Amino acid sequence: MVLAYDGSAFQGWQLQPHGPTVQGRLEEALAVLTRGFVRVHGSGRTDAGVHALAQVAHFAAPAGLDLARLRTGLNALAVPAISVHGIVPVSPAFHARHSARGKVYRYHVFNRPYPAVFARQRCWWVRAPLDAAAMRAGAEALVGEHDFSAFRARECAARSPVREVRRIAIEERERSDSTLRIEIEASGFLQHMARIISGTLVAVGLGRLPPEAVGAALAARRRAAADATAPGRGLHLVRVLYDPAEFPELAALTGP
Amino acid sequence: MVLAYDGSAFQGWQLQPHGPTVQGRLEEALAVLTRGFVRVHGSGRTDAGVHALAQVAHFAAPAGLDLARLRTGLNALAVPAISVHGIVPVSPAFHARHSARGKVYRYHVFNRPYPAVFARQRCWWVRAPLDAAAMRAGAEALVGEHDFSAFRARECAARSPVREVRRIAIEERERSDSTLRIEIEASGFLQHMARIISGTLVAVGLGRLPPEAVGAALAARRRAAADATAPGRGLHLVRVLYDPAEFPELAALTGP
Repeated sequence: MVLAYDGSAFQGWQLQPHGPTVQGRLEEALAVLTRGFVRVHGSGRTDAGVHALAQVAHFAAPAGLDLARLRTGLNALAVPAISVHGIVPVSPAFHARHSARGKVYRYHVFNRPYPAVFARQRCWWVRAPLDAAAMRAGAEALVGEHDFSAFRARECAARSPVREVRRIAIEERERSDSTLRIEIEASGFLQHMARIISGTLVAVGLGRLPPEAVGAALAARRRAAADATAPGRGLHLVRVLYDPAEFPELAALTGP
Repeated sequence: MVLAYDGSAFQGWQLQPHGPTVQGRLEEALAVLTRGFVRVHGSGRTDAGVHALAQVAHFAAPAGLDLARLRTGLNALAVPAISVHGIVPVSPAFHARHSARGKVYRYHVFNRPYPAVFARQRCWWVRAPLDAAAMRAGAEALVGEHDFSAFRARECAARSPVREVRRIAIEERERSDSTLRIEIEASGFLQHMARIISGTLVAVGLGRLPPEAVGAALAARRRAAADATAPGRGLHLVRVLYDPAEFPELAALTGP
């Protein structure tokens, strides 16, 4: 299934003992609709407050389930903060997390001296004007396969700190409703990686750090060398990438 | 002043005996900040639930008021549903409503079989796919100076039903996050005019009415000849137009 969610309504993706989570809400709705327990596996966790435009998750469906009706039922039970865009049968070899070949995240910075009215739960409000050119210059050092130890949470449990950042694009605020957007595509993301990269690039955009500091932080491989973790509410999981030759059935999910 | 507001938090622009209004909230904040009563005059009322990206209002400021501090103060008191973008001194000849030479409204229709997650208070959810070409064909009949009696609320108190619609643009859902947008620029709008036009064009987009029905409704000059009033939550006041030669000081308001 492909789904969108408003992260401001949840304590993140992953099931927690307290507080609503996206996984928990989906499993509750599936239990009602299938009259049994169904475990939902996401492509990865998202932190509390982080949004998704197209998260991917898989589950083992009871035999004979009508997927169109299931989508309608899930959307009736999981509103208003979750919207299931589509559900398709996939090969048993598919695993939302293990089969993923990459992800795209987008960070929104509302960059005006006055506050955002509509997207206030979906952006970080930075009042002073950001220098997008300096941010682009700083971001260049991150593209490629690197040890991202400086850009992961201290408690990150990933075995390897090596990831490949395929591109970082900075879209200036003029193009989109006063919001500067940082879009990052990578083979995978370490814990808080998208938020620490965004926080560090914003520090460059404000002139608090020179662009060269980004490459220097990467080389230092220490969390303290990078800047602050940007707030979760500005972050959006935009896309999860799979090999279309391996899982052609997923192409249908990107349609309406 | 130019301000944006999230209409879902208000019973419309105009002061009401019950329920919060944008005008009421602004007057309360101004009373605190200026230590006195200040009447706020908007460019026009917006209905309950209707949003504004750039509403214009004027007021008589007490002498010696620091307008930059006033903006900061208003934004501190009126958050989170109102954001004051800018305040500039204007010639005493200026009146937010009487000086306006036109307005631009934009209607958002979320056009997918699944619900909107982020913009749910800012759109009308229409599940069946809309035919934008048919909507454009229907809209053509409205452009020009006409008697819009068919497209105003029965209780509309405007003396003349004649307005000039300068353009109607239909932007298809693919261009912007699954949302079809109807943008209307007119010399002025009768009560519910933007919403009745939008509701009627959506009926055309769904194939419930042929495009010719729009011109036929206009010619009939009876409210019953047009289709239903689209919900307020999809409507956005985008811009209020003034003569730049008459009020050059307003140009500064469109900046950051």
